[in-house]
Amino acid sequence: MKLYSLKNGVNPRRVRIFLAEKRLSIPIEEFDMETAGHKAPAFLARNPLGTLPVLELDDGTVIAESVAICRYVEEMIPEPPLFGRSALERAQVEMWNRRMELELLLPVIDVFVHTHPFWVGKRRQIGEWGAARREQVAERLRWLDRELEGRPFIAVDRYSIADITAQVALLTARGALKLSIGEDQPNLARWWASVSTRPTARA
Amino acid sequence: MKLYSLKNGVNPRRVRIFLAEKRLSIPIEEFDMETAGHKAPAFLARNPLGTLPVLELDDGTVIAESVAICRYVEEMIPEPPLFGRSALERAQVEMWNRRMELELLLPVIDVFVHTHPFWVGKRRQIGEWGAARREQVAERLRWLDRELEGRPFIAVDRYSIADITAQVALLTARGALKLSIGEDQPNLARWWASVSTRPTARA
Repeated sequence: MKLYSLKNGVNPRRVRIFLAEKRLSIPIEEFDMETAGHKAPAFLARNPLGTLPVLELDDGTVIAESVAICRYVEEMIPEPPLFGRSALERAQVEMWNRRMELELLLPVIDVFVHTHPFWVGKRRQIGEWGAARREQVAERLRWLDRELEGRPFIAVDRYSIADITAQVALLTARGALKLSIGEDQPNLARWWASVSTRPTARA
Repeated sequence: MKLYSLKNGVNPRRVRIFLAEKRLSIPIEEFDMETAGHKAPAFLARNPLGTLPVLELDDGTVIAESVAICRYVEEMIPEPPLFGRSALERAQVEMWNRRMELELLLPVIDVFVHTHPFWVGKRRQIGEWGAARREQVAERLRWLDRELEGRPFIAVDRYSIADITAQVALLTARGALKLSIGEDQPNLARWWASVSTRPTARA
């Protein structure tokens, strides 16, 4: 297996943390935004959408989409379980991973793309949309703080892919957007202190 | 089990088609946009985000998020498999279901929310964003037409949740947005003719 990744990419980091939690080390080829090799014909033949990460199996089969890659690795290496141990847990992890992606990570990425100077000239920026999404992120952080009361992790009673998704969302929000955890959000702060100091956090 | 659904809701329809494919009939309580009972405190205690659908198990456990509900039902009723039969198929279905959701369904919903008269006064509408997403939908339909060449279904060689997700996206695009399949998109047209005439299509 080989992973095609993107330097500083938000979604590639989700997969790299996931692989590190599974203690799986595979060859990684890193693209970067500036040379954009992942938008060149040779790579588009693998993934016509030009998104990263992409996992290539030994027979040449290609799996794109972070969560699809993680799910495949989960089936190859079941321990530690990052998608849940039972049918109910797997549903709960799916629910929370989706909430973290749809309600937090995608809005964070929108704020980044539509308001950050890095994207000027690279993407069409719609400032009003970026501002609306920034409000949504702030509101969702308040909601997540309430949800985390009395809970060490987001979906079930152990670390899961839902935590990883929330973690990369927060990492991007804090790093690129100066959108931080509020002083009135103790549960979120406690969760962040716990997940961001895991040995795999900077994978 | 009981399903809380939303009349004419896009995501609730995904779940209803899924249940119909599994030949599973359970009690359904329908909310509607006008009275918005799903935004009232009694329901927010079940799902603080106020989204539908929601599945309630007999012990009161709540599973929100369409795909989480479908995944739970898949584990209870494995046949016919709608998430894939092997590890590789499950990864491919996940990849394609995500593509259909992130690249097609979410943009379609954005076009609807940000440009359709139905949402005036109900949601903040950002016309420029709606227009950008409309372009994206048109582009993605051209891409999907190319991908479907020689393939009867979207993810694997049988009907899956990826087809359901694409189907509700197309249903919304055609119904609310007059965004139709182009005459130069024969593969998409063939696929649509096949999936939209399944007995479960109007579930």
